Formats: sequence, C-alpha cells, structure tokens
Amino acid sequence: MEKKALLYEGKAKKVYMTDEENKLIVSYKDDATAFNGAKKGVIEAKGIVNNRLSNYFMKMLETKGIPTHFIEELNDRETVVEKVTIIPLEVIVRNFAAGSLSKRLGLEEGTRLNKTVLEYSYKNDELGDPMINDYHIFALDIATKEELDMIEAYAFRINEALTAHLEEVNIELIDFKVEFGKTSKGQIILADEISPDTCRFWDAITNKKLDKDRFRRNLGDVEDAYQEVMNRLLVHDN
Amino acid sequence: MEKKALLYEGKAKKVYMTDEENKLIVSYKDDATAFNGAKKGVIEAKGIVNNRLSNYFMKMLETKGIPTHFIEELNDRETVVEKVTIIPLEVIVRNFAAGSLSKRLGLEEGTRLNKTVLEYSYKNDELGDPMINDYHIFALDIATKEELDMIEAYAFRINEALTAHLEEVNIELIDFKVEFGKTSKGQIILADEISPDTCRFWDAITNKKLDKDRFRRNLGDVEDAYQEVMNRLLVHDN
Repeated sequence: MEKKALLYEGKAKKVYMTDEENKLIVSYKDDATAFNGAKKGVIEAKGIVNNRLSNYFMKMLETKGIPTHFIEELNDRETVVEKVTIIPLEVIVRNFAAGSLSKRLGLEEGTRLNKTVLEYSYKNDELGDPMINDYHIFALDIATKEELDMIEAYAFRINEALTAHLEEVNIELIDFKVEFGKTSKGQIILADEISPDTCRFWDAITNKKLDKDRFRRNLGDVEDAYQEVMNRLLVHDN
Repeated sequence: MEKKALLYEGKAKKVYMTDEENKLIVSYKDDATAFNGAKKGVIEAKGIVNNRLSNYFMKMLETKGIPTHFIEELNDRETVVEKVTIIPLEVIVRNFAAGSLSKRLGLEEGTRLNKTVLEYSYKNDELGDPMINDYHIFALDIATKEELDMIEAYAFRINEALTAHLEEVNIELIDFKVEFGKTSKGQIILADEISPDTCRFWDAITNKKLDKDRFRRNLGDVEDAYQEVMNRLLVHDN
C-alpha cells in the first residue's frame, strides 16, 4: 500500500490517503494538547505507545464483536484503518466521577458512580465541545435514533470489555472517550483511538494516574505513565 | 383554610403551610431575579399576573389529562396547591433555539428546531443548575427510569397543549421550564408555575418578546408584556 497526500492533521495524529479508496494511514504524533488547545506540549514516544495501545484495544474489542476501523499496524507510529465519516460526537463513558463530571455534579474525583454514566459532547472546537443530549443530536441531524441506540450499545459493551481486561493488570478504568464513524456502506464502527490520551486509567492499588491527566495537571512522570500501561498489558499477555 | 407558618421563600414565591397536611398556600411576589440571582429587580404586579396565568394554564392542562398541584385560587396573589416533594430537575422543552441553547449549539435565536428538544437541569444553585442527562439523573438517584419516562411524556404533552392554546392568541411558545413533584401517595404531578417567568413567549407576528427576557436583557416594557399575555388569553376566552 502506498501512502498518499496528507488528508488531515489533528492535535495528536496525521491522517494520510492511500492508493486504496477505503483505506487511510494514521500516524501518531508525540504532540499533546489540553483544554481545547490552550495547553500544548510534547510527550516523548507518546505516538508509539498510543499507536500500539489503541491497536491492542481495538483488536481485543473485535474479538468481543465490536466492529472497529483497525486494519493493520504498519510500524511504530503508523496504522492502516478503514476510511469512515466521523460522527461528530465524543461518546464518554464514566464509571467513576472525575474531570468535568466532578465539577458538574460536585462529586469528589474517584467517587464510584451508582450507575454507569454515558455523555455526548458535540465535536465543535468553536463551541468548546459542549455537552449535548439525544434531543440536541436529533435536532442537529447528527445521528438518527437507530444510529444513536447502536452507538450507545457499543459504548457500554466497550466499557465492559475494557474494564474487565484492565482489571487483570490492576488498572481501574475511570472513564473514557470514543468516537464512531460511518463506512462507505453505512455501517457504524469504532474509530479514532483508545489510549491514555482518551481514557482515565488509575492504578487499582495506589490510585496513581496513568493517563493524560499527568500532562493536563503537571503531575510529572508523564512518559513513564504511558509506558507503564503498555508494559503491564504486554507482560500480562506473555 | 388557615394559613400557617412560612415553609419556604424562593426568588419569586413564598410558600406557607396550612392547617391541612397535604395543602400549601403559594404567594406570588413581584421580585424578579436572573442569572442565578446575580441580577435582581421588581416587576410591578408580576405576582398577580403569574398567579393568575399559572392557574389558568394548570386548569387548562388538567382538562388535557395532566395532573397538576393546582387546587384553588384564593386571591390575586395566593393559591392553594397540593403539597409535593419537588423533584430537583428543571425540565426544559424547546421548540425554537433561544437563550442557553443558542449559545450551546451556535444557533441564532428564533431558529425553529427540526425536532423538539427536551433538556434537564439539576436544580442546584451552588453548581449553577448544570445541564444533566438521564444517566446523571440515575447516578444521582434523582428519579428512576419509570419516573423519568413519565416526566418526559408529560413534558411533551404540556408542550403540545400550551403551543396549540397560545397559537390561538398569536403567541409562539419558544421554550419553557416546568418542575414536577411527588405527592404523599407517590404520584408525579406538575408543580411550580407556568408564566412569563418560566416560558419564552414571542408575539407570532412581530416576534416581540412577551416574557422575562425583557427583564433579563433590559428591553423595557416589562410590566406591559406580562399583562399583554394575560389580556390576550382573557379576551380569547370571552
């Protein structure tokens, strides 16, 4: 497969066209941003860890019946994925209160939620990715009721699979954000990435944060934390 | 019925106990506040208009099968209502974009929404009445799925009935906020008030605002606007 023109450059990834209509190459960067781009930095080797971790999780989820955009890992930083039209929603699943939910509901970070919480944010930098609900999604024609039901069902199944898998390596899945896309055939599949950039991972014993909050909140040990998640999963599998 | 001790004083109403266990007397004030209490003022005779208007709408809604807390209008400002435990949700229904929705979604005020939008805010002054979704409501144990389904169904039926009724007097119902309460028997009924304090009413021809936005945005003619809504409905009924 041949890498063609740059299609899009995001905050953490570049996306290239290929010589195949329905395939793209994603290239993970070390760049890190937070607070809608207001904070910028570099996390060394983050692109390598996130590429591998995201592919690792997507392959695992495929075995649980979740369709994903993953096709083939090319090298340290690059992966072939299926081309999709991204549905402009951040689909957030929360098992414990943290971040914006703690602020919104006045709950201390780390409080286990009685019920799993699912939230949608409208992917729109100008508006600051506002939280929206099902009715806003329908009014904005972002997705139909049937599509949203499917997205919601996938999101909860992803949560179950990730939570169980991470428990085996003593990582608590606090919350995570996923994005879905529509293929040329209209199928909804998991897209974007699953990594310490998009999940909150806490050590199940010490509660040490092993995710992007170390960067957002200047907690230090950022590179080590990303590596730690990868290492635990690799050791577990050997 | 005898009016007993003051039970609660809110921004726009006082609530008194009575000599009957399950009945309260609501007394409407002229005080107006906006922006979570940051703006304060007085709208002359607002209490009289809102008492009458709210009772007018509740009686109309009762004929459409919506149970409400309304029992009996005592005088200009006071009404006997059924005692309920208020469910701490602002239930907001929107037919056109305005106010916080315009800001959230970047839609011009007055844009007709493709689909009616329903939103919940968590009634909590300290947190600034944040928007929440069904999952937050379940996680906070504010209502069960069955209760929320009922609240949602009532909210849409209230919207239909109010919209149709107001159309007859050339008023467009842009959006409104209602609150529900639980009776001692566990029944969910419409409580609080329905008035220009809690609805956006626009003249259907001129788009003139006939509601609390005149106060919030210093548009003048505030008292006249409140009276105008009342007058149109009284004239219509005669």
